[in-house]
Amino acid sequence: MLNYERYKRVPVVSYPERQWPCREIMKAPIWCSVDLRDGNQALIEPMVVEEKIEMFNLLTKLGFKEIEVGFPAASQIEFDFLRQLVERKLIPDDVVIQVLVQCREHLIKRTFEALEGVKKSIVHIYNSTSTLQRDVVFRKEMDEIKEIAVQGTRWVKQYMQDFKGEVMLEYSPESFTGTELEFALDICTAVQDTWEATPEKKIIFNLPSTVEMTTPNVYADQIEWMNSRLKNRDSIILSVHPHNDRGTGIAATELALLAGADRVEGTLLGNGERTGNVDILTVAYNMFSQGINPELHLENIREIVDVYERCTKMEVEPRHPYAGKLVFTAFSGSHQDAINKGMQMMHERKNPYWEVPYLPIDPSDIGRQYEPIVRINSQSGKGGVAFVMDTFYGFKLPKGMHKEFADVIQAISEKQGEVAPEQILEEFKSCYTERKEPIHFRKSQITEAEEDVEFSTLAKVRYTDHGVEKVFEGVGNGPIDAVQKGLEKELGIEIRVLDYYEHALTSGSGAQAASYIHLLDVKTGKATYGVGISSNITRASIRGIFSAVNRLFY
Amino acid sequence: MLNYERYKRVPVVSYPERQWPCREIMKAPIWCSVDLRDGNQALIEPMVVEEKIEMFNLLTKLGFKEIEVGFPAASQIEFDFLRQLVERKLIPDDVVIQVLVQCREHLIKRTFEALEGVKKSIVHIYNSTSTLQRDVVFRKEMDEIKEIAVQGTRWVKQYMQDFKGEVMLEYSPESFTGTELEFALDICTAVQDTWEATPEKKIIFNLPSTVEMTTPNVYADQIEWMNSRLKNRDSIILSVHPHNDRGTGIAATELALLAGADRVEGTLLGNGERTGNVDILTVAYNMFSQGINPELHLENIREIVDVYERCTKMEVEPRHPYAGKLVFTAFSGSHQDAINKGMQMMHERKNPYWEVPYLPIDPSDIGRQYEPIVRINSQSGKGGVAFVMDTFYGFKLPKGMHKEFADVIQAISEKQGEVAPEQILEEFKSCYTERKEPIHFRKSQITEAEEDVEFSTLAKVRYTDHGVEKVFEGVGNGPIDAVQKGLEKELGIEIRVLDYYEHALTSGSGAQAASYIHLLDVKTGKATYGVGISSNITRASIRGIFSAVNRLFY
Repeated sequence: MLNYERYKRVPVVSYPERQWPCREIMKAPIWCSVDLRDGNQALIEPMVVEEKIEMFNLLTKLGFKEIEVGFPAASQIEFDFLRQLVERKLIPDDVVIQVLVQCREHLIKRTFEALEGVKKSIVHIYNSTSTLQRDVVFRKEMDEIKEIAVQGTRWVKQYMQDFKGEVMLEYSPESFTGTELEFALDICTAVQDTWEATPEKKIIFNLPSTVEMTTPNVYADQIEWMNSRLKNRDSIILSVHPHNDRGTGIAATELALLAGADRVEGTLLGNGERTGNVDILTVAYNMFSQGINPELHLENIREIVDVYERCTKMEVEPRHPYAGKLVFTAFSGSHQDAINKGMQMMHERKNPYWEVPYLPIDPSDIGRQYEPIVRINSQSGKGGVAFVMDTFYGFKLPKGMHKEFADVIQAISEKQGEVAPEQILEEFKSCYTERKEPIHFRKSQITEAEEDVEFSTLAKVRYTDHGVEKVFEGVGNGPIDAVQKGLEKELGIEIRVLDYYEHALTSGSGAQAASYIHLLDVKTGKATYGVGISSNITRASIRGIFSAVNRLFY
Repeated sequence: MLNYERYKRVPVVSYPERQWPCREIMKAPIWCSVDLRDGNQALIEPMVVEEKIEMFNLLTKLGFKEIEVGFPAASQIEFDFLRQLVERKLIPDDVVIQVLVQCREHLIKRTFEALEGVKKSIVHIYNSTSTLQRDVVFRKEMDEIKEIAVQGTRWVKQYMQDFKGEVMLEYSPESFTGTELEFALDICTAVQDTWEATPEKKIIFNLPSTVEMTTPNVYADQIEWMNSRLKNRDSIILSVHPHNDRGTGIAATELALLAGADRVEGTLLGNGERTGNVDILTVAYNMFSQGINPELHLENIREIVDVYERCTKMEVEPRHPYAGKLVFTAFSGSHQDAINKGMQMMHERKNPYWEVPYLPIDPSDIGRQYEPIVRINSQSGKGGVAFVMDTFYGFKLPKGMHKEFADVIQAISEKQGEVAPEQILEEFKSCYTERKEPIHFRKSQITEAEEDVEFSTLAKVRYTDHGVEKVFEGVGNGPIDAVQKGLEKELGIEIRVLDYYEHALTSGSGAQAASYIHLLDVKTGKATYGVGISSNITRASIRGIFSAVNRLFY
């Protein structure tokens, strides 16, 4: 029996005046990466200095302007890392270095020693304010907890007096989501007054969902409640720091942005304690997919994943939004068919907007153009196979041909499971373009009468029949008709061309063309496609006819 | 440059009358597993029959009463699998088998053939209704799209007439989130009328977030909009089927439940097309963590993960909520300290409710009691080391000793990274309980005077000093005092016992005790702990004194 009765429901906010559900996200927040702090501390194998520097360089390259680099007063390693950043001059002028520290004097003093030489920094102080932690961890009353934060603020003011460089204060009422809102407001206001924040000397209030405790709408209510009550709002940057214990960290962040948050602390790909911090990349790509500039350079997700996996020794899971190996696949046949049609339509209509079913974004926009988009298995429909032939190899199979060829692949996939694009191409060749025996086209000479009259085309065709060289002639309205007529007489068959379709495989004068001939055996009523390839469009068509004849009669 | 201008913002609902943000989740929905359909079709290597049966058995064991087993009319493999379930009598009487099928007559006919012998089934028909798919995929008007659904409903009614067994209809306006709400309502109502749904003959309307397109509050608005407008609501089971393209599938599901959904289709651990279907386990465990019966037997997440990984060949990522290897770890020192205190307090207060900071649930409630909860690295505080010593080995280090021993481990972890619990124990032994040289306690004889007067205890102690056997006597108020006095005289030192603490390591009469002695060297002011173990509490204390003396003076 599951012990569900051991757990209490976390109280929600009674806040019917909420406005956030009526709003939409319209712009990117200030992003602050905590990869080198929250992220790093949660790794089984924390990054060594050179890995931290590689991560730091990636973050600045992606456009992060605020980066929390550690808790230098608590760890010699993190102290040394910050000193390396300074001494090796690795901090760009427009990047603000953030450091975490508890509200204790010797730690704050040590923090300023670590920051020596940093031009712009955020000193991030915190203390736990939740009901539970006040009770079981600190055993302190509200006033004592508030005094910790206020005294921390005073110490930052004191030690920054002799410090060369801009310093901003960030205060986090840690475990905010388990804190009475009135108390969180009270403590923030006390810190704000102590700091003497102004619009020119803003203070960052960071309201963490240290442990995700409720549905994300409750977090949004909490943020909007605070947002609407904090005084001198233009002196404040309102920041959120969501975790993902209930799997809703992304949602909590997005709803918090609706509720008025200005700034998001998180990590690449959601690294961080337990279930991780919020994944900034997903939040940013979600904005991107809605036409909003995420204010980060996210064109190359593969590079980001490479550096991330190398530095953290964590693997990005295959279904991770935007970054996972499988997220731009479509296994369902109807999905593949719809993707196929959607892409065709975009192309035909020259639609400047991306509008393709089942693919929220164009994978090539984020550096994933070289990955297979569609995988073919026994669940795949005819559209999927056609899509692979088009996307990977440039063969635009006529619609009537989709089922015929998809049936071939379906039979294979029912036996072996997934079929790779390469194998689909091989099957296409053996069924169509290389289907050359026993009636093997060799050479042709087409003679057109000068006048455009009926039966003006004479085709003289050399071929081998079971290896024996032969020749025939045919007359008709154009080369296909002439070859068809000649073949009928030569082989004693009755055929009709139901459909004909041809396209260039590549561009340029030496380009090859693919010709698709849908051929009917009049006696049996059986029909099939044949496909021929040549740089000469006439020869491609004749090869197509021979391919179809071989498929129909042999 | 990121091509964000290629994307349009998805329209939201203007629905200020929404009620869902004021509600709380109070009970579990009807769960429907689509692991064997959506889940299976999205696998690189789809399950073979025996794997499907193992998965099916797991699902029934977990308590799923509705299981979608495939699309039998579209795939011979899925047809055969359903026949196996029937013929091998694997379907429990209280489990309803759901099958997916398009609104096409020959497929519906074939579906009923596949269902032959199934006592209770849900025939799940669907067609794409979204603006985009109507335009680029089907090129049909609204009326034609509606007619597809209505005709599908008629065919189900027709073919079920001769079918033995209960049949329920489920209709999905596929790509619902991209469909105009008025049209979704219109098409559902037409299907409802055709089906002639009543409270006794309910119809399931499944409103999928086929591709997650917006923040989850918009999905909730859409669900509530439909919920409030569908007629004869008591004839309807309102179902949701969220995907996870924006990483907010869990949130979308939870907010949809607030908005009135009765039923959730999803998969174990979020397997499914692209980024996956919603993870039913996380939604259910989220309810569990709030004291709500999830109506699933989720006591053993490890078994679920084992079967899942074996059948799907997918791996559960380390930060997956509730199931991931790292989600019950705490790397941060302050987190470890708070967890430690929270657990102590729960124990002391005999609190029937789980209230521990940073751990939303007790891992042991879901079968994870044997996993290390705390890992020690250079970021860990003193509480973490003490917690490991207590949780893994039963040593309840006195609070004053935490820092002393944590500093030892911190120094190691700064060199080597993470420190395993076994190594922490080894260090504890070499620093304390095995710190026996050069002054090595051998034997003691304690004689207590009969009357309780001062200096009533005589201790006669045999020991070796650099291997040389020696003996001393001491008199004091109790054995510790007597041994201390004797040692001072014998070794020419001046010491004071600052603190003494002793506890049983195990229960029972032969149990060993651990004794912690905080000893001060009066001349230098230096102090340290010593620890001794023995089944005799006096001897444990004497060993503790010797341990401390060796640490202080040698």
